[in-house]
Amino acid sequence: MKGWVVVAGLGPGADGLVTPDVAAALAAATDVVGYAPYVARVLPRAGLALHASDNRVELARAAHALRLAARGRRVVVVSSGDPGVFAMASALFEAMEGRPDWQRLEVRVLPGITAMLAAAAAAGAPLGHDFCAINLSDNLKPFDLVLRRVWLAAEGDFAMAFYNPRSRARPDQFRQVLEVLRTRCEPDRLVIFARAVSTPDQEIRVVTLDTAREEMADMRTVVLVGSSRTRAVGRFVYTPRSA
Amino acid sequence: MKGWVVVAGLGPGADGLVTPDVAAALAAATDVVGYAPYVARVLPRAGLALHASDNRVELARAAHALRLAARGRRVVVVSSGDPGVFAMASALFEAMEGRPDWQRLEVRVLPGITAMLAAAAAAGAPLGHDFCAINLSDNLKPFDLVLRRVWLAAEGDFAMAFYNPRSRARPDQFRQVLEVLRTRCEPDRLVIFARAVSTPDQEIRVVTLDTAREEMADMRTVVLVGSSRTRAVGRFVYTPRSA
Repeated sequence: MKGWVVVAGLGPGADGLVTPDVAAALAAATDVVGYAPYVARVLPRAGLALHASDNRVELARAAHALRLAARGRRVVVVSSGDPGVFAMASALFEAMEGRPDWQRLEVRVLPGITAMLAAAAAAGAPLGHDFCAINLSDNLKPFDLVLRRVWLAAEGDFAMAFYNPRSRARPDQFRQVLEVLRTRCEPDRLVIFARAVSTPDQEIRVVTLDTAREEMADMRTVVLVGSSRTRAVGRFVYTPRSA
Repeated sequence: MKGWVVVAGLGPGADGLVTPDVAAALAAATDVVGYAPYVARVLPRAGLALHASDNRVELARAAHALRLAARGRRVVVVSSGDPGVFAMASALFEAMEGRPDWQRLEVRVLPGITAMLAAAAAAGAPLGHDFCAINLSDNLKPFDLVLRRVWLAAEGDFAMAFYNPRSRARPDQFRQVLEVLRTRCEPDRLVIFARAVSTPDQEIRVVTLDTAREEMADMRTVVLVGSSRTRAVGRFVYTPRSA
């Protein structure tokens, strides 16, 4: 048996957002590797080994998947959303550094619906023009760089999507991000807090920048910030194509 | 019959990248509205009216869809990629301005795999850290604003995805974008030209900024520019999680 690794995006939560390519890869797999809550979204079946791991062990998880494939297993590494957006694909390639044997394996990345696209669709079309996606976690980069990127994005009048806006370990940083936005953007700038998008827990909350508060976000939230042109029409929020 | 409008993303081309939610909406529709090449991707069937229109008539097309829904039709407006990323969703909400009757209709946006995510997956994980998506067309915005956003994105060391990089009507502007990048980025910065992603015509070309040329792009190309940290491992290109 020839082994392979597929890094697959399961989308934000709903089965209706899992692509047929990802479903086919899961059907052909012998092993599924990933962070436990994502592995739990895969239907168990005979002949399929499920390897659930903790958060923040991405490199070890990637190496595990590559070792399995090198032994002839057909491995799907599952990510939430899209594997290439703040998820497992980068970790897999990082784990291949200095390992020419692993670089020769059959490896494919299957895209998925990333949280910001599902959140935008639920709200209307707030990312309808130029936008930036920024991971607010300072787990692997200095927080000053986060703030600098937010500042530049506001300076360019981009719409923005913030991933991992807030966690228990850093409850205060998102407040600093809101402060930076307030120095560059008008008080009535639209901000969308999209929590648990496409799941039964989904909550979409639209507020203005002057009323946005850090406690409106948690780790299940993606935050979308409109450009200066973003506006409401009826119950929808959209950014005009001419922004 | 109660009418509705669904704005659906068909993904970049492959059937395996069309979500089940989008397939279900098409199965329930009475009418499909869209730019002719996208409507051509929908399988004809009895009871389904296909309304193909030209490029650059987005507002008229959106109004057509809303009028049909107001008459009780079940309408899917098809976009390539994701409808919320440089596509039809914004035009639909724009068409609702000043029309409270249309704002009361049942309207939903169904996300899709946008070109940059499929292109990134085909190349590895070049959008693996903070990135910007910029529409290079100056059809609806001044080209100076395009250049300014590219400059700011480079200044923030974002990875970048460029949509609509080049057309026959503006063959020279993409050269100016490359020039701006060259003032801010090192000559060996990785640039990916991804053409017709996920279709039989797919071509992925990875070059360095100093060898990138405007004629490498056309209207079927999405261009990805790495951050300063983006690197190659084996045949893949990825941006480390720590960028």
